[in-house]
Amino acid sequence: MTRPAITSTSRLARRASGMASAPRNVPEEAPVAFSFAGTTHAVMMASPADFEDFALGFSLTEGIVGSPDEIDAIEVQDLGAGIDIQIRLKDSANKRFEARRRRLAGPVGCGLCGIESIDEAMRSVDGVGGSKLQLTPEDITGAVRLLAKQQPLHAETGAVHAAGFYVPGKGIVAAREDVGRHNALDKLGGALARAGIDGASGAVVVTSRVSVEMVQKTAAIGSPAIVAVSAPTALAIRTADEAGMTLVALVRGDDFDVFTHPERVTRGAAKHVA
Amino acid sequence: MTRPAITSTSRLARRASGMASAPRNVPEEAPVAFSFAGTTHAVMMASPADFEDFALGFSLTEGIVGSPDEIDAIEVQDLGAGIDIQIRLKDSANKRFEARRRRLAGPVGCGLCGIESIDEAMRSVDGVGGSKLQLTPEDITGAVRLLAKQQPLHAETGAVHAAGFYVPGKGIVAAREDVGRHNALDKLGGALARAGIDGASGAVVVTSRVSVEMVQKTAAIGSPAIVAVSAPTALAIRTADEAGMTLVALVRGDDFDVFTHPERVTRGAAKHVA
Repeated sequence: MTRPAITSTSRLARRASGMASAPRNVPEEAPVAFSFAGTTHAVMMASPADFEDFALGFSLTEGIVGSPDEIDAIEVQDLGAGIDIQIRLKDSANKRFEARRRRLAGPVGCGLCGIESIDEAMRSVDGVGGSKLQLTPEDITGAVRLLAKQQPLHAETGAVHAAGFYVPGKGIVAAREDVGRHNALDKLGGALARAGIDGASGAVVVTSRVSVEMVQKTAAIGSPAIVAVSAPTALAIRTADEAGMTLVALVRGDDFDVFTHPERVTRGAAKHVA
Repeated sequence: MTRPAITSTSRLARRASGMASAPRNVPEEAPVAFSFAGTTHAVMMASPADFEDFALGFSLTEGIVGSPDEIDAIEVQDLGAGIDIQIRLKDSANKRFEARRRRLAGPVGCGLCGIESIDEAMRSVDGVGGSKLQLTPEDITGAVRLLAKQQPLHAETGAVHAAGFYVPGKGIVAAREDVGRHNALDKLGGALARAGIDGASGAVVVTSRVSVEMVQKTAAIGSPAIVAVSAPTALAIRTADEAGMTLVALVRGDDFDVFTHPERVTRGAAKHVA
């Protein structure tokens, strides 16, 4: 079952020469529902591709499973209006998930549910300080340049995010695209797990901004570094700092900014300014 | 109760001259939990500002209420880790919301929940074909230029989305910013409702891409046009087309693309090319 990732549409283009109809490629988007233990947990608007990566990655980065071994089966069904993905968990993961769901659902009208949901959203992330990863400035700028070559959907539409995994000496070893930046990162997480690539061995590289959720998901993947084209939020910076994660952002050509844990970035021969 | 919208942070900046520590402003981000009828419905990561606008706008654009009159009270509480917003609905809206929640929750393990959730995500939008709004090319390019002047948070951080409401002859009559593009639009919807501005009288203008949810929310606001700086998805185009909404995107300087219902855009004296 495959769906097209791109649709050619006609639009009226206004240019200096006047208005004219012309074709343009736009990315597809579809609702994808994730069900665990037979109950829908989330519906995401996503690029309709890489569903198994998406389901596995979402399960891992949202902490529903600790490893791919805890998943019995992933069943993907195209319902026309959207994609239904049933993720069957093994016994222990199933019990953990149902306990979490009961905790979050809470008694109706308890008035405390906001607190539970906020705590869940702000869940502490795994520390990633153990990794020995080191990045040179050329690793950082090169990773973004290399990722740009693995964005076929973006090349056609100019409207899709990407997440890649960069290993020094090897380049971008996996990349996934999606209309949503969180989805692209989830799909990357699933692709890495399926390929047996250790998250501690490299850096996550994203074309987007860095919100706290991108840091949470990067930590769940086990990577000690996130490298982003755009800017981070203050909460993303605090969370990366606490997790021992190097957050590099605003990578533009040869320039970039290191917001946390700069000890993983080798300074090379560049001048130091106090 | 106010929180800072911006935090000054220090980062290591790599430039041609070498690496140096330098301050940079980054936007704050916090979990905001919306509870209806005493139960948490959603948690959004958002810029911690304009909470009443956000709560009212979210209630309207997600179809939980049909008008501000259906809300009894909005109570905002800062819990430190996040913001808890309790939205108290009047009787009829309360009953409708609880029926919807029961329908979505479904019996545990029913296996049908994905379908319900997908249908909910793809809910049909209100038609907006009744509005007599007409936009000249100069309205469209001018609206984006005017919105740029009402983005103080973005001017400081370069990392925040904005949504504004443009009325021909009046300019941008309301604008809101947020780290999330959906949140910015929800906040705008709330601001318009609180100010008693009719959504049919102008165009929604956003700095972001146009996913289907942006079209759904614009339709709920009652506006017949969305004007965006970036590109739309195929599903956003189909949904706007069905709703009778004019979707203008990729507004760059004097250029733009009209994807749906071009009859609202006056061609003026520009050349027509077949």
